[in-house]
Amino acid sequence: MTGDRHRSGGRRGRAQADAAGTGGRKVDYHNLSNPFPPVGVFTDDRVMAMHETALRVLEDLGMKVLLPQARDLYRAGGALVDEDTEMVRIGRDMVAAALSTAPKSITLRAGRREKDVVLELGTLVIQPGAGAPHATDRIKGRRPGSLEDFHDFTRLTQCYDVFQILGPSVEPQDVAPQLRHYETTAAFLTLSDKVPFLYSRGPAQVADGFEMIRLARGLTPEQFAAEPHAFTIINTNSPRMLDIPMAQGLIDFARAGQVSVVTPFCLMGAMAPVTVAGAVTLSHAEALASIVLTQLARPGAPVCYGSFTSNVDMKSGAPAFGTPEHVKANLAVGQLARLVGLPWRSATGAAGVANDAQAAHETQMGAWGAVLAGATLLIHGAGWIEGGLTVSFEKFITDLEAMQVFAELCAPTPCTDADIAFEALQEVAPGGHFFGAAHTMERYSTAFYEPVVADWSNIGAWQERGAMDADERATGVWQKALRGYAPPQTNTDNIAAMHAFIAARIDAGGAPPES
Amino acid sequence: MTGDRHRSGGRRGRAQADAAGTGGRKVDYHNLSNPFPPVGVFTDDRVMAMHETALRVLEDLGMKVLLPQARDLYRAGGALVDEDTEMVRIGRDMVAAALSTAPKSITLRAGRREKDVVLELGTLVIQPGAGAPHATDRIKGRRPGSLEDFHDFTRLTQCYDVFQILGPSVEPQDVAPQLRHYETTAAFLTLSDKVPFLYSRGPAQVADGFEMIRLARGLTPEQFAAEPHAFTIINTNSPRMLDIPMAQGLIDFARAGQVSVVTPFCLMGAMAPVTVAGAVTLSHAEALASIVLTQLARPGAPVCYGSFTSNVDMKSGAPAFGTPEHVKANLAVGQLARLVGLPWRSATGAAGVANDAQAAHETQMGAWGAVLAGATLLIHGAGWIEGGLTVSFEKFITDLEAMQVFAELCAPTPCTDADIAFEALQEVAPGGHFFGAAHTMERYSTAFYEPVVADWSNIGAWQERGAMDADERATGVWQKALRGYAPPQTNTDNIAAMHAFIAARIDAGGAPPES
Repeated sequence: MTGDRHRSGGRRGRAQADAAGTGGRKVDYHNLSNPFPPVGVFTDDRVMAMHETALRVLEDLGMKVLLPQARDLYRAGGALVDEDTEMVRIGRDMVAAALSTAPKSITLRAGRREKDVVLELGTLVIQPGAGAPHATDRIKGRRPGSLEDFHDFTRLTQCYDVFQILGPSVEPQDVAPQLRHYETTAAFLTLSDKVPFLYSRGPAQVADGFEMIRLARGLTPEQFAAEPHAFTIINTNSPRMLDIPMAQGLIDFARAGQVSVVTPFCLMGAMAPVTVAGAVTLSHAEALASIVLTQLARPGAPVCYGSFTSNVDMKSGAPAFGTPEHVKANLAVGQLARLVGLPWRSATGAAGVANDAQAAHETQMGAWGAVLAGATLLIHGAGWIEGGLTVSFEKFITDLEAMQVFAELCAPTPCTDADIAFEALQEVAPGGHFFGAAHTMERYSTAFYEPVVADWSNIGAWQERGAMDADERATGVWQKALRGYAPPQTNTDNIAAMHAFIAARIDAGGAPPES
Repeated sequence: MTGDRHRSGGRRGRAQADAAGTGGRKVDYHNLSNPFPPVGVFTDDRVMAMHETALRVLEDLGMKVLLPQARDLYRAGGALVDEDTEMVRIGRDMVAAALSTAPKSITLRAGRREKDVVLELGTLVIQPGAGAPHATDRIKGRRPGSLEDFHDFTRLTQCYDVFQILGPSVEPQDVAPQLRHYETTAAFLTLSDKVPFLYSRGPAQVADGFEMIRLARGLTPEQFAAEPHAFTIINTNSPRMLDIPMAQGLIDFARAGQVSVVTPFCLMGAMAPVTVAGAVTLSHAEALASIVLTQLARPGAPVCYGSFTSNVDMKSGAPAFGTPEHVKANLAVGQLARLVGLPWRSATGAAGVANDAQAAHETQMGAWGAVLAGATLLIHGAGWIEGGLTVSFEKFITDLEAMQVFAELCAPTPCTDADIAFEALQEVAPGGHFFGAAHTMERYSTAFYEPVVADWSNIGAWQERGAMDADERATGVWQKALRGYAPPQTNTDNIAAMHAFIAARIDAGGAPPES
């Protein structure tokens, strides 16, 4: 795309097309550059006013930080800490120092170099819907998330290049809490070669996760520490609170050289002011406080700015997504993110219960908000419904189609003289058609995106095939993808070492989550 | 929104919120300014190469023009005309002359001044899905379009401010062709006070339409001629052909001072080259040729540039919409439109048969393409399915929601110091909530967009209400809107005069369409 001021074309090499969907086309869905010039909602001076207010919040009001170790770090860094109230007041000099040491570009290492992910302003990385207690599909219905569901979502994520990183799709509630992280991390490392996610549920679980990755990837401790191999999401407890596992996660990931994605979850009217400007200002203050902690723990530690800001239904308090306020918040956060200069995370989402027109509109609206905001990480890109209570296998597929369209929009559009096609225009007579033109014949097999689930047939053919809507057709698509799934190549010895580590840890009782 | 180079806020006054959907909020969905800086797909030099190629197509290859009167006008204007082949070759000087006389801003007069519509680069005007042979809804199913359907779609369009102009939703196949335009135009003029559309199906029907508008609006012939009161869509017969009724329409509308919206329908790989660049170049050439004819017929005649360019499924030839190629074509056309400088029309669309996630994604992708391209007119904004063979009452409603979100994005976002809300951030303790904060209480009733059909309730409440998806819920929404519909105030004498004219014309046999 070209914008009013800057333009960007495709970047880096072109990978193989994924098996399920793109036919003979060679498209690189892994390395995406956002083609759109960033759009904002506020004038530059109001963005500065929001930033100044966020700094004032940190200086005058402060954050409540529940973890003593974190308060110690803040204090040592120059913050004013009141141990009785656990309030930490952070000066703007500390914020400036943190932003000067946090890296502007982060390369996350995957199981194969081709699956590495670059996080910086301008890149676009998409994660499927994550963090849901429930899974649903048309075969088995809605149920508590299970390890089998977690495996299947991990396999599906592996199948589609447009999802460049792994996410904790659903909570495997059939695994005991103190053992769950072994199963989820092992699933990521054996069923996929993409960049793994780790939950921050206390230092023991985090350390287990790091060690499993180190072993499975065959890295020395020094090699592991030298580069980011994992990421976590850190949600503040808005407003203005950082709880124990989240603060601990920021410290532990920073010290290990791994990536924290700082994400205040600020629902306007609930845990944040009812205005876009107010909610985003609060989110910004909390994100800055969290980034400061990472840099106090280890200057130069990789950290992403982020926000998840939408509104609630003021009648019921229910969260809403894909609303005008959600889109505007995404765009406003992008303005602050560019001020900060770090790679950053946004998200889409859907409040709808069904995989229907509502949920599709919600997910796509939120996604456009994130993409036009210039987000580096687009989270919950596929499958998320019920405001995140459930991930749907069918919606994973129907949203996948939308994400692949975004990926196609990232690719340059041919415009040589041959593409402009004067000769073809000359060849075809007025009122004729181009089906048989040489220009068409040379290009038709790879000219267009081929859909994964969209059905373009006429109503007669559609009815003959059972009059199935997109949700119904999606069942066959994910089933076929799972049947065709092939695990990535892994090093048998490394994986065995990881399993031996897990066995020893389980023998020792595992590691319960901390909260 | 603010962009990298320009920004635009809201414009003009704020009208009453429409009855069905926006609650206590005062939002002006009628006067929309596109808030997004335009985005393109090609570099400026390649846009110029496409423009140059289009000029070369017109100069060297020419257009086949079936109407002798049009060929006479082209010849008199300096074109090289071959009467045997009906080919007309148009020089770039003629194109430049036409673009210098065509107005850059057009005000279309409605039945009330508040419903007038300004067409110029930067405004955003949305028309619901139009031109379909069939209608469908969940009650009566899919059927040939009827006058009753046409009436109902006209009433629904009147109900929602976000649709600023009327469209020929479905073809009322239960009315004889020679009488149909009386019924459709009378419906527009009695059931709505928005700007009416007229088909170009021969001079007799066009003249009838003009006279009906003149009488219903109580205008003298001079008053009618002095300002635009109606618009038509002119589809070229791509590639490079202008048929008799279309050429006649361009001439008749231009001479009457009414608006032609020039719209080559260029499906890549079918009636246009398989490349985005080639298809858009062909569309551009045909649009320029048509604009030239309007200015030869009457210099200064109001005319819109336009294009409807998407791709086909190369396996079946079926048209596709909301594809990456459709979005890219919309953006590319926008680049050429800005070169031309005229108000211009783009469109969204859906190939899907059902009102499901597929069709929602398609309509929203195409709509984003049109909006980011800076289109003045966004056509087929609601209800269009099956590639335009059917307009769905339910999809009219689910798409309406998306269009209203676009309209909300056009409105400025409050960002005063009070909106940034330092005091509210101070008032609410860490870990608390903003539900009861003074800042929230002052704003909550109007802070957020209230959905028309989206359901944000949790799965329990949703199941208790019948577990209806958005398509099912939409039935109740359009039924309620029709029940609440109130016809606009009209002048009884004027409407009687229009009906007397119709009666006389019907006595005389009506006016059969020409093709």
